[in-house]
Amino acid sequence: MFPTQSQSNSDSPSSSSVAVHSAGSVHRIKFCQWCGGPAKHEIPDGEEKIRAICTLCGKIAYQNPKMVVGCLIEHDRKILLCKRNIEPSFGLWTLPAGYLEIGESAADGAIRETWEEAGAEVEVISPFAQLDIPLIGQTYVIFLAKLKKPQFSPGPESSECCLFELDNIPFDSLAFSSIFVTLNLYIEDVKSGKVKFHYGTINKRLGTGPSDIRAFTLDYHLQV
Amino acid sequence: MFPTQSQSNSDSPSSSSVAVHSAGSVHRIKFCQWCGGPAKHEIPDGEEKIRAICTLCGKIAYQNPKMVVGCLIEHDRKILLCKRNIEPSFGLWTLPAGYLEIGESAADGAIRETWEEAGAEVEVISPFAQLDIPLIGQTYVIFLAKLKKPQFSPGPESSECCLFELDNIPFDSLAFSSIFVTLNLYIEDVKSGKVKFHYGTINKRLGTGPSDIRAFTLDYHLQV
Repeated sequence: MFPTQSQSNSDSPSSSSVAVHSAGSVHRIKFCQWCGGPAKHEIPDGEEKIRAICTLCGKIAYQNPKMVVGCLIEHDRKILLCKRNIEPSFGLWTLPAGYLEIGESAADGAIRETWEEAGAEVEVISPFAQLDIPLIGQTYVIFLAKLKKPQFSPGPESSECCLFELDNIPFDSLAFSSIFVTLNLYIEDVKSGKVKFHYGTINKRLGTGPSDIRAFTLDYHLQV
Repeated sequence: MFPTQSQSNSDSPSSSSVAVHSAGSVHRIKFCQWCGGPAKHEIPDGEEKIRAICTLCGKIAYQNPKMVVGCLIEHDRKILLCKRNIEPSFGLWTLPAGYLEIGESAADGAIRETWEEAGAEVEVISPFAQLDIPLIGQTYVIFLAKLKKPQFSPGPESSECCLFELDNIPFDSLAFSSIFVTLNLYIEDVKSGKVKFHYGTINKRLGTGPSDIRAFTLDYHLQV
């Protein structure tokens, strides 16, 4: 269904360094956030990657990928989508999802984001997908969920929330590759009669923007 | 099998603030890592949480949970474990696992960590578990994997690597709650004849250290 390639982009040193640059270069860190000392950029003893190290207190500022958590809500055989009222991908459709916060579980975060973006109270039913996007240092964790009450209304980050029939998903106006992949996998699962859990890596083509949602290969696609 | 509770710890504001403190308090951030300006601690417009905001350039230093990726390797009906040669949990047994880096997928990170800690070349077969630990801002992502070659040897962070029969796992000398849960779920799945994918939240009891591996409840346990 999706383009794939035999080897992951992130296996090659050259694309890996591009990825690090895209997702937040270590060289952008110029000061220590704990003591204010100037940072140097070196490979610490016993490690293999260049890090920002404080020249005063010696602390290392590690940078790690972020989790985006969200819900795929089916109601009356329709899927709840939100039209984005913010950049990136303003005006395009997405599942309610956002960054996981410290102190909450992925399921709690997905429930919170759904409340914030779609004004919907949901119950998480099952994990559905983990989709890594190495180039931008993000991992999408999507849960299947159901409405506790049949009400929803757009929060500040959405201009509109609608239920779409599976045959009527606005695939030409989706906000992100991760949403495109998630909805395709879900529709395929529903048609096959078995909804599974999917792990996959979305390797975006270099130089493409967040709205170039078809410029990727889906690698490492594993299903349970 | 595990203790559970009807409501997640992270639902209550009081425990949530403890969690934020435990996992890296926003108040520890005193300077902007991009421009060196002093930070203030306020709720930004349109948000709900206190963040460290630069008083000079205005940038916000978001803190998010980190992913720990690792492999559960079965070989000849035995599981590969590593004895930790570093703190925390020095001298205790764990699965090869470590922090996901920017620019790599979770599967690639799990393969890398297995090479670094166990000197083993592995192929990822299937996602097995996502276990969130809100109190410390970590999410474990564990894959089932198999050895490409029947060789392994401890890397610098391990003092020993061994294959353990399923009936002989050193449950009294495991390094972390996440590893305790993962191995228990796996053994239960193997006995039931069907290895599944598991999502769960490990809510650690407040004030317990990383080595108090049984001081938790497993909440939101969902299986596919």
